[in-house]
Amino acid sequence: MKTLIRNATIIPMTERNLFFRGDILIKDGIISRVEPSIMEEADEIIDASEMIALPSFVNAHTHLSMVLMRNYKDTAENLQDWLSEIFPIEDKLVDEDIYQSSRLGCAELIDSGCTVFADMYFNAWNTVKAVKEAGIRGIISQTFMNDDKDAQWRISNTAPRILEAIGNDDMFRLDAGVHAVYTATPECYSIAAEWVKERGAFLHTHLSETKKENDDCMKQYGMSPAALIESTGAFSVPAYAAHSIYLSDDDMEILKKHNVSAVYNPSSNMKLASGVAEIAKIRGKGINVAMGTDGASSNNNLSMIKEMNIGALLQTVSMMTPSAVTPYDILSMATINGAKALGLDKRIGSIEVGKEADIVLINTEDINMAPVNDPLSAVVFSADRKNIDTVLCKGKKVKEHGLLLTVDKEEAIAKTKERWEDILRR
Amino acid sequence: MKTLIRNATIIPMTERNLFFRGDILIKDGIISRVEPSIMEEADEIIDASEMIALPSFVNAHTHLSMVLMRNYKDTAENLQDWLSEIFPIEDKLVDEDIYQSSRLGCAELIDSGCTVFADMYFNAWNTVKAVKEAGIRGIISQTFMNDDKDAQWRISNTAPRILEAIGNDDMFRLDAGVHAVYTATPECYSIAAEWVKERGAFLHTHLSETKKENDDCMKQYGMSPAALIESTGAFSVPAYAAHSIYLSDDDMEILKKHNVSAVYNPSSNMKLASGVAEIAKIRGKGINVAMGTDGASSNNNLSMIKEMNIGALLQTVSMMTPSAVTPYDILSMATINGAKALGLDKRIGSIEVGKEADIVLINTEDINMAPVNDPLSAVVFSADRKNIDTVLCKGKKVKEHGLLLTVDKEEAIAKTKERWEDILRR
Repeated sequence: MKTLIRNATIIPMTERNLFFRGDILIKDGIISRVEPSIMEEADEIIDASEMIALPSFVNAHTHLSMVLMRNYKDTAENLQDWLSEIFPIEDKLVDEDIYQSSRLGCAELIDSGCTVFADMYFNAWNTVKAVKEAGIRGIISQTFMNDDKDAQWRISNTAPRILEAIGNDDMFRLDAGVHAVYTATPECYSIAAEWVKERGAFLHTHLSETKKENDDCMKQYGMSPAALIESTGAFSVPAYAAHSIYLSDDDMEILKKHNVSAVYNPSSNMKLASGVAEIAKIRGKGINVAMGTDGASSNNNLSMIKEMNIGALLQTVSMMTPSAVTPYDILSMATINGAKALGLDKRIGSIEVGKEADIVLINTEDINMAPVNDPLSAVVFSADRKNIDTVLCKGKKVKEHGLLLTVDKEEAIAKTKERWEDILRR
Repeated sequence: MKTLIRNATIIPMTERNLFFRGDILIKDGIISRVEPSIMEEADEIIDASEMIALPSFVNAHTHLSMVLMRNYKDTAENLQDWLSEIFPIEDKLVDEDIYQSSRLGCAELIDSGCTVFADMYFNAWNTVKAVKEAGIRGIISQTFMNDDKDAQWRISNTAPRILEAIGNDDMFRLDAGVHAVYTATPECYSIAAEWVKERGAFLHTHLSETKKENDDCMKQYGMSPAALIESTGAFSVPAYAAHSIYLSDDDMEILKKHNVSAVYNPSSNMKLASGVAEIAKIRGKGINVAMGTDGASSNNNLSMIKEMNIGALLQTVSMMTPSAVTPYDILSMATINGAKALGLDKRIGSIEVGKEADIVLINTEDINMAPVNDPLSAVVFSADRKNIDTVLCKGKKVKEHGLLLTVDKEEAIAKTKERWEDILRR
C-alpha cells in the first residue's frame, strides 16, 4: 500500500525552524521518501496544497478516562482539594466506565491530531481495548499507589490483565505509572522500578506538581520529591515526570543525570493554580521536555493543538520574552521530544525516511489561519481542532477531512454520558 | 417574524452562576419571552436540546484588518519591537486591503460567536462596509495619533467618510480611538474627547500596556498614562481602555472615578510579553472589566471563545487561586460587561425580555464537551470555535449549524491573501 501526500508545507521537525514545500511517500506504513516533488505511482494520493504536514502530536501525560469528570468540581481551590473530590468518584469506577470513556478520549485525541499518548489510569485493559479499536498507539501504565504490598498485588493481579489485552501488539507498551510521592511509598517506587527494569519499560510519575507536595515531602523524608524518587532507584530506569514545576537546581541535576524527561502540562497547572514550570531553564540544563494535556477533568480537553498555544503563551509571559520558548521549541515538545520521552523517537516524532507515518495535515484554508505568513507560528498560535483535517497513524487514516474514521463519535459521547449518569447514582 | 429557541440550557447572564433549561421567544429581533416552556406559534423553531444559549460575545478591543498580518513577525521581543515591524506595513495599506481583511475579520468573529466588536483602525469606512454586509454590529472608531493639527485634519477629512458609510444605521457607532500616550499628544486626546462629547460617543484607547509605556510617560510628563489622559479631559467622556496592565492604585482610582472600563486582552498581553492585568484587583475596585482579542497579528485569532479560556487560566495561575476570577466572571467580561463598556447594555449583553436577540448557541454534543457537568465551566474551559453552532444578531441568523450565512468564507480568505501578497510587493 502506497500513499502519496502531495504539495504540503512540511515541517519535518528534524532541524530548527525548517519547513519546505514537498511530497511525502508512505509505503506500508513507513515514510519512504520526503522530497520537493515525487513522481511515483501510489494507491492513494492526498492533495495537501493548502495543508501543513507535521508529525502527529505526542501527548506525554494524560488520564484518558477522566473525560468522565470533565468540568466536574471546577470550584476546587487547588490540587489537593480537587483530588479529594475526584478520588471518591474513582473508587466507584467499573470496567465499562473505563472502556467507554477511553473511547471518547481516543476520539478527542485523534480529532486534535494526536496518535500516541502516555496514560496513567486504573483497569487499563479497558483503555487498551478502546485504543486498539481506535487504531492509534498507547503507552499505557500499570498504576501504582500506596505501599509495597499493594504494588506486589497489582503486579500479580492487574498488570497481567493489561499485558494480555496488549498481546504482542507493538503499538503499545506497558509502563509503570507510580502516582506521586504523596500517594506512594518509597518502597512502592522501588518495586515498580524493579518491575520496569525486568520488562524493558519506562516509569511514569507526577513530580513536584505543587509547592505543598515539595514541602510535605521535605517534612516527611527530609528531601525533595526528585531526590526521594532517585533514592528509590526509580530514576535508574527510563522515566518521564509530569508537571515538574517546583524543581530546584539540584532536582534538575537529578533529572539530567538520569536522563529523565519532564512533561509540561500548562492548562492543568494553570487551572489548578499549581504554578508555572520553568521550561526554558529545564531545557537549558539539557533535560528533554515533552508536553501533555493531563486529564480532561483538569484541562478541560485532551487537545494538544490547544495545549501548544496555551503553553507557548504562558512561557512568554512568565519569562517576559518570546525568545525563551519559541514556536519551534513548543512544536518539538509536542512531537519529537514527546517521542524521545516515551522512547519512541526511532519510530515516530518526525517526518523522516524510515520512520512510521504518524502525520497530521493541518488545513490553512480557514478563516482563523489565513494568511499563514509563518507556518510554525500559525500552528502554535492560530490553529485549532477544526483545522486538523487528516490524521495518519502508521500510514493509516484515522481522521479524514475532519471526520473520525475509527471511532463512532456519537456512540462514544452517548455511552460516556450514560456511564457518568450511572456513576453519579452509585 | 417569530423565532422560538427550544429546550436550551440558558445562561442568561442576569444573575451570578444562574442557568436553567428553557425556551426563548424572539419577536422581530427582540427577546419577548424567556421561560421554562413557551407554547406559542413561531415562524421558525430552533431545537436547542443539546445547546447552551448565551448572549453572543462582545469583543471590546480589536483591530479587525490586522488579520492581514496574522503570524507575521512573530519573533518580535516586545510591543515596541513589534510595532516597529507593523507600522511601516500599515503605511502601505489602501482601502481595498482594509475592506477585504475586514470581511475575513467579520467571518472569524461570527464563527467564534461574536456579534459586536470595538475596532480601532485606519480608513474605517471600509470596515463599516464589510460589517454591514456581514450583518453584525460595529463600534468603529476614528483613529487619532500624533498631534492636535493631525487630529483636526482627521475630524475634517476621514471621520465624515466613516459617518457617511454608517448613515443612520443603529448597529454602528463611531467612537474616537486615540492610540496611546506614546503615539498621541495630550492635545490630541483633548481634541478627540471634545469631538466625542459633541457626538455622544465613547473614547477608546490603549492604556498602560507595557512597563516601558509607563516609565516613558513618567519621564516625559511626570505622571502615569492614566493621570495624563485624565488631565486632558479624555476620561470625562465615556471611555474604555484596552490592556490596563500597569495600573497603580491611584490609576485605578482614576478609572473608577470616571467610570472608565478596562478591557482584558490576555492572549496579546502574553504573546507580546507585555504582562498580566490584575483583573481581580481592578474588578474589586468596582471598575467594569470587558474582554477583547486585540488584533489577529498579536493574538493570533479573533476568537472570544478561545480568549475566555486563556484569560481564565492566566488569572488563576497568576493569582494562584481559581476563585479570584471564576468562569462566571469571565463570561460576564465577554458578554454583559463588554456591553456595559461600550454603552450597549440596555440593548444587548444578556438574555432578557426586551433586549435585542444577540444569542449564541453552543453545541455540547461534541467530543470535547461531553459530559458537560457544569455549563459555565464547559463554555469557558472546554468549548471551541467548532462548538459554536448558531449565532443570531438582532434575531437574524449569521451562522447556522456551523456554516456562515452572511460572509463568503472562501472568497474572504482568497481576497485577503491576494491583498497581503500585493502589500508585500509594494
